[in-house]
Amino acid sequence: MLSTIGHAGLSPVSLFASSEETAAADTRIEGVISDLIEEFLQGKDVAAPIDLAMLAQRFAAAEVPAGSLRPERYLEVLRHDVMPWSNQIASPRCLAHMNQGLPGFMRALAQLVAAMNQNLTKADASRALTLCERQGLAMMHRLVYGCPAALYARHAADCESTLGIVTSGGTLANLTALWCARNAALGPCRDFPGVERAGLLDALRYYGYREAVVIGPESMHYSFTKAVGLLGLGERGLVRVAIDDRGRMDVRALRATVAACQARGACILAVVGVAGSTDAGAIDPLAEQAEVARAAKAHFHVDAAWGGPLLFSEKHRGRLAGIERADSVTIDGHKQLYLPLGIGLLLLRDPHAARVIEKQAHYLSRPGSADLGRRSLEGSRPGNALFLHAGLHIFGRQGYAALVEESIRKAALLADRIRDLADFELLADPDSNIALYRYVPEAWRDQLLGGDLSAVDHEALNRFNERLHKAQRRAGRTYVARTTLFHTRYGRDVPVVALRAVIANPLTTERDLDAVLQDQQTLAHGLAFPA
Amino acid sequence: MLSTIGHAGLSPVSLFASSEETAAADTRIEGVISDLIEEFLQGKDVAAPIDLAMLAQRFAAAEVPAGSLRPERYLEVLRHDVMPWSNQIASPRCLAHMNQGLPGFMRALAQLVAAMNQNLTKADASRALTLCERQGLAMMHRLVYGCPAALYARHAADCESTLGIVTSGGTLANLTALWCARNAALGPCRDFPGVERAGLLDALRYYGYREAVVIGPESMHYSFTKAVGLLGLGERGLVRVAIDDRGRMDVRALRATVAACQARGACILAVVGVAGSTDAGAIDPLAEQAEVARAAKAHFHVDAAWGGPLLFSEKHRGRLAGIERADSVTIDGHKQLYLPLGIGLLLLRDPHAARVIEKQAHYLSRPGSADLGRRSLEGSRPGNALFLHAGLHIFGRQGYAALVEESIRKAALLADRIRDLADFELLADPDSNIALYRYVPEAWRDQLLGGDLSAVDHEALNRFNERLHKAQRRAGRTYVARTTLFHTRYGRDVPVVALRAVIANPLTTERDLDAVLQDQQTLAHGLAFPA
Repeated sequence: MLSTIGHAGLSPVSLFASSEETAAADTRIEGVISDLIEEFLQGKDVAAPIDLAMLAQRFAAAEVPAGSLRPERYLEVLRHDVMPWSNQIASPRCLAHMNQGLPGFMRALAQLVAAMNQNLTKADASRALTLCERQGLAMMHRLVYGCPAALYARHAADCESTLGIVTSGGTLANLTALWCARNAALGPCRDFPGVERAGLLDALRYYGYREAVVIGPESMHYSFTKAVGLLGLGERGLVRVAIDDRGRMDVRALRATVAACQARGACILAVVGVAGSTDAGAIDPLAEQAEVARAAKAHFHVDAAWGGPLLFSEKHRGRLAGIERADSVTIDGHKQLYLPLGIGLLLLRDPHAARVIEKQAHYLSRPGSADLGRRSLEGSRPGNALFLHAGLHIFGRQGYAALVEESIRKAALLADRIRDLADFELLADPDSNIALYRYVPEAWRDQLLGGDLSAVDHEALNRFNERLHKAQRRAGRTYVARTTLFHTRYGRDVPVVALRAVIANPLTTERDLDAVLQDQQTLAHGLAFPA
Repeated sequence: MLSTIGHAGLSPVSLFASSEETAAADTRIEGVISDLIEEFLQGKDVAAPIDLAMLAQRFAAAEVPAGSLRPERYLEVLRHDVMPWSNQIASPRCLAHMNQGLPGFMRALAQLVAAMNQNLTKADASRALTLCERQGLAMMHRLVYGCPAALYARHAADCESTLGIVTSGGTLANLTALWCARNAALGPCRDFPGVERAGLLDALRYYGYREAVVIGPESMHYSFTKAVGLLGLGERGLVRVAIDDRGRMDVRALRATVAACQARGACILAVVGVAGSTDAGAIDPLAEQAEVARAAKAHFHVDAAWGGPLLFSEKHRGRLAGIERADSVTIDGHKQLYLPLGIGLLLLRDPHAARVIEKQAHYLSRPGSADLGRRSLEGSRPGNALFLHAGLHIFGRQGYAALVEESIRKAALLADRIRDLADFELLADPDSNIALYRYVPEAWRDQLLGGDLSAVDHEALNRFNERLHKAQRRAGRTYVARTTLFHTRYGRDVPVVALRAVIANPLTTERDLDAVLQDQQTLAHGLAFPA
């Protein structure tokens, strides 16, 4: 508990100094932190059991301490109150999250990024890192769009254009994409200064629309709900198209939705395709979506936050065919690029697409400057592009391809195992590397096999799987995520609670997959049923 | 150049492994990175001279390398192509930026944050760090609002409320504040579902407004321009109120603006006060602004991204009097809290204020959960709250107070020096710790003293100071920022190019301040005048 640790007089300036004495202190601190990291990463459990409400009491002091605390003392607090009760994201038996443990060099680079503390919004506060970021964007742009080399020679480092925008994550990348789409569709025209200047009310009036909408699959990430809310379209302006039982958008339904929106006088700002849905890892028929978007003269955005890195694999990249026709593409760094959290990418096919969101301020971002802040939603931001730059060079195409191929292979393997076990039901064939399934207690197995589970049965199974999931979380040895599906073979009226295994940790072995299933079996046997 | 470095076959999985062999490799990499950091921090120049266009050629390859690269080889690339050409943000003679070099323990913690790689959007992907974040918010809330202890006991860790929101930076904090303000002002009412659901067009119609505006001083950060654009109000919806020659909002002008907006049927969503303007570090009369906002029934937001930490100082906190009446307050972590880039804070007086932006998704953020992602613009985000938690404990109130008091003292000292030197003109008395001044070549000094500089003279001085600033950047020994002022004693029609010194590096000594001025004098003498 922090309150039990005394405060020592300490000059705050000395913490910044870099003398021999402070260098020794810094080295000691680094040593302790290395130990903490090692202890943490060697933890066997996904999450050590503790009552979080009890733990919260250790963090209840609500006043900034008056005096200072030696860093070494603070590290003791971390050792006792924080590290043991954190989530072992890197555990090969933690299949719950879309971010994973990081390679050692990434962790070490994080210290470098903090030491440099460059501010990427402004070229003269980042210099070489500005170039790293632009090179990373160019490489990812080429991976997605494969434009001729001349385009990259022209635009990779050009101050007047950009091949993409680095954000703190996929949510901001998706928001930025729709911001661009809105401003392009309702832009300046004759005497009208455009929506960004005049606002949405005047823009819709000027262009004679009754509303403006974004159309995408039911599988869209909730960042799109945030985006349409923020942009003033309202959540009602997000029109959801049905998905099939593997989680892919139904393109016939898309065509019907587009026609209906047009018929009621709506401006279709964007059509969204998903390449790797959050729930199921499902990949939409992007080429067909691109065609519909083009015919509707709408911006085509692909949210490939999860699935983008399949493009590294010759074996799997065909599944994203059509992505090269997208006006914009989101790819997350912290997912299958294995970068630390805090970096998302928006790639823009047209190097001038970001002009519609460009801002200036007289203390920075002068016209013609190399300042990246001119075209980003965020202002000051860290040099996280270095992680991207490092990842692209150290893993390379083949490295990333091998990682994603292994993950897809293992997900198929897990699906096979689940299919073979009588007490599990596979809820969908994995479209990439996320498996959806549930536990079926013995009393329901005949109905399951006979295909006559009633709504009441599903409801009972849902409650059971929720309890199983909570028991698994409490035990803390293994972990998967939980979601509710509305598009299984049982039809849209039957919500199905699913266990969701994300297979992306390179260290997860077949034995680990078995261990997760066995842990769930053991826990299920221990649950009274019905409750 | 990267292309000249060979690629070695390397299993990507081995990069994740933590065996004895990989531990040795990781230790080697950490050693190299420690050396890189030490070399970097010992660099004397603010920015080593190089032609950035030439440097860009080393980053011109636009294809992801096919093979992998050993991390050690990649570090060689950093050593040659990145580190020497980065900005020495920590130099005590770099007075250009609002972020500074970090204490050693912060750099080391960055490695820990990456190693843990917790995802703060979701409680079961962050556990104890969720509690660190909430405690950090509670402490900062108490610093600003000083509510009774019972409020913190009730809300600090409550799932149904929040004392603030952690963002990637001040821009998103300001945006989130205005998002809350918009949604509260145009919220659900009887049969109307509210602006977030129905969109801005229907909301303004329902409430009978012709437009919705945000009112703030001319000194507002450009993040407000982004925010009103994004939120659909349009840049025209940002109404700027005149500031005086020290950069503080004129409250009489604010009252007139409010009356004018009301008269034309506009909904006043928010009044913005600035506590530490970007240009001048000026602090608005917050208490009077609060009164005007309350009378207008508008949300009162204070952007204290820069000035917030003055609250730690008993000596200076009175200058922010009235901030406790704000509905929301932005404070940046990377500025005067001395945290790494990537963390901004929005503090909310009402613990339920964020309800109007709350979202849910069935794969996370269940109602009643402790998931922080329910109420943040961003989705997945890193455990940067640990830096805040560490800073508050290690510096403590007294430590932060000492830092900010020293900065303000040194800024006053720099202002005195400038006043005493015949070849500089102080353009405004520093309101906190930013000094604005310019160089005046000898030929203009009589007019300056006689008070008869013409518009043509000012124009010539502007061009000269631009050239001087560029020469200083090119030389790279010392550095300040540059801005253009429109509110000096010379009147609003005379734009004045100013040198802008931000005094916040704890290691900057009086000798360093003199060295910056001397460097500018030397460079000025070397410039032909007129050009």
